Amino acid sequence: MHDFLSSLQIDTGLVRKILVSFLCQEIERTGLDGAVVGVSGGVDSSLSCFLCAQALGPQKVLAVLMPYRTSSPDSLRDAEEIVRLSGVRGLTVEITPMVEALLAKFPEADQRRRGNIMARARMIVLYDQSAAQGKIVVGTGNKTEILLGYTTLYGDSACGLNPIGDLYKNQVRQLARAVGVPDHIVAKAPTADLWQGQTDEGELGFTYDQVDQLLYLLVDERYSPAECVEAGFDRAFVGKVVERVRQSQFKRVPAPIAKLSNRTIGYDFLYLRDWGT
Amino acid sequence: MHDFLSSLQIDTGLVRKILVSFLCQEIERTGLDGAVVGVSGGVDSSLSCFLCAQALGPQKVLAVLMPYRTSSPDSLRDAEEIVRLSGVRGLTVEITPMVEALLAKFPEADQRRRGNIMARARMIVLYDQSAAQGKIVVGTGNKTEILLGYTTLYGDSACGLNPIGDLYKNQVRQLARAVGVPDHIVAKAPTADLWQGQTDEGELGFTYDQVDQLLYLLVDERYSPAECVEAGFDRAFVGKVVERVRQSQFKRVPAPIAKLSNRTIGYDFLYLRDWGT
Repeated sequence: MHDFLSSLQIDTGLVRKILVSFLCQEIERTGLDGAVVGVSGGVDSSLSCFLCAQALGPQKVLAVLMPYRTSSPDSLRDAEEIVRLSGVRGLTVEITPMVEALLAKFPEADQRRRGNIMARARMIVLYDQSAAQGKIVVGTGNKTEILLGYTTLYGDSACGLNPIGDLYKNQVRQLARAVGVPDHIVAKAPTADLWQGQTDEGELGFTYDQVDQLLYLLVDERYSPAECVEAGFDRAFVGKVVERVRQSQFKRVPAPIAKLSNRTIGYDFLYLRDWGT
Repeated sequence: MHDFLSSLQIDTGLVRKILVSFLCQEIERTGLDGAVVGVSGGVDSSLSCFLCAQALGPQKVLAVLMPYRTSSPDSLRDAEEIVRLSGVRGLTVEITPMVEALLAKFPEADQRRRGNIMARARMIVLYDQSAAQGKIVVGTGNKTEILLGYTTLYGDSACGLNPIGDLYKNQVRQLARAVGVPDHIVAKAPTADLWQGQTDEGELGFTYDQVDQLLYLLVDERYSPAECVEAGFDRAFVGKVVERVRQSQFKRVPAPIAKLSNRTIGYDFLYLRDWGT
């Protein structure tokens, strides 16, 4: 099979410049004073944190560390290292009490339910800090996970702005190295750390490098699934990935509103630009 | 001033038919088995609950009642009446323990922060029940509150489908009466019930009937703000409402992703229909 990894190579200097200026401009437009980022110790949130620090100055950035009782101590240690290296302010808020308060009522909840509750409890903490500090929540989701729907709706995907949502995981790693995220954080196995031993690649059943190449062809190069198979990808793998993208479309669009009027939110009422006074 | 309330009159029989068929069809498309609705005792969620019961049959609908320790006992009693009258299944989950678990860390949080935490804690419960039961979360937000941004992002506005998001509050009341919501629930003062004595109209500073007429002209009839003033609306009121709609636009659209590639989620990657295999 042809290696499409080379197609994923980015000019890290240029991309960094674009993202730093995106953050500066978009945050200034909102009138808010700085950014709040949930920092997990993984490469995605580390990159977002470094980009925010460079765009706004580290004193305007609040990194919130939100361990759960089963979170790996290594994750917290890595998150603390990111706070130290980027120079941003750090705040640790344990989500365990909130999560346990709900789980006490539903002890039978499976791992998926527990993981979603944790991700959404973290959203609550981030948005509460955003209100408390007058700062915007900056997102940490990459293009790969958003396309695969490997996110919790209204949880880790919730943000006011996302600087890294158009970068595949492979590209996040390239840029993270370039902006100064330590190599041991870039290189470690990605995990949502929702339960012990969880890894993204174990749960998904394929590697990020594999799926990044396939998604690049499907999404960016507009290959059909059949053309991806012709290009050398396994048919079952292509089918599985296409199905995941289809099934998770609802997470990437606003919820449908039943249309009744001339101008419905989300359909016809999209822009305010015809409201010049 | 001309009375525009007549323009808000709906054919309740027709609208009910459209919304019931919207719910049937859209929920069937998802493959999920029924609906979860948060029922507060107010008119919006009562209407959503009745529509779901009529669309799916009451046994497929789970109404979740989520009081907080400061919620009015009248609200809970009204919500219980809606469960009884619509014949749906009811489940009560107190959000107090979850909310208090976070507030213990931030006792200085003001009412706005507390209200947002409550609204988001309710979202967590609804989505958890949605996962537990294999049902979709059906929304309860009306067009007036969505346009005014009088909602909590990722809180009460979070849903999988919204049957009533294209009905102004005045129209919600018309339809609610027509589908059998008791008059005392339709007629009572709307409140988010986040703290004692709170009413929507007190907090907003105008009545729903006033703002519904103005929003109808601005949004549905595409009047400019100046034309609304010519039509007899107070200039300061028009300015205040236009500003609210502008300032809350971010709640109605997906968060911006920094564009880097050929096809970015939310900009160019919007539809899956070119993925025929």
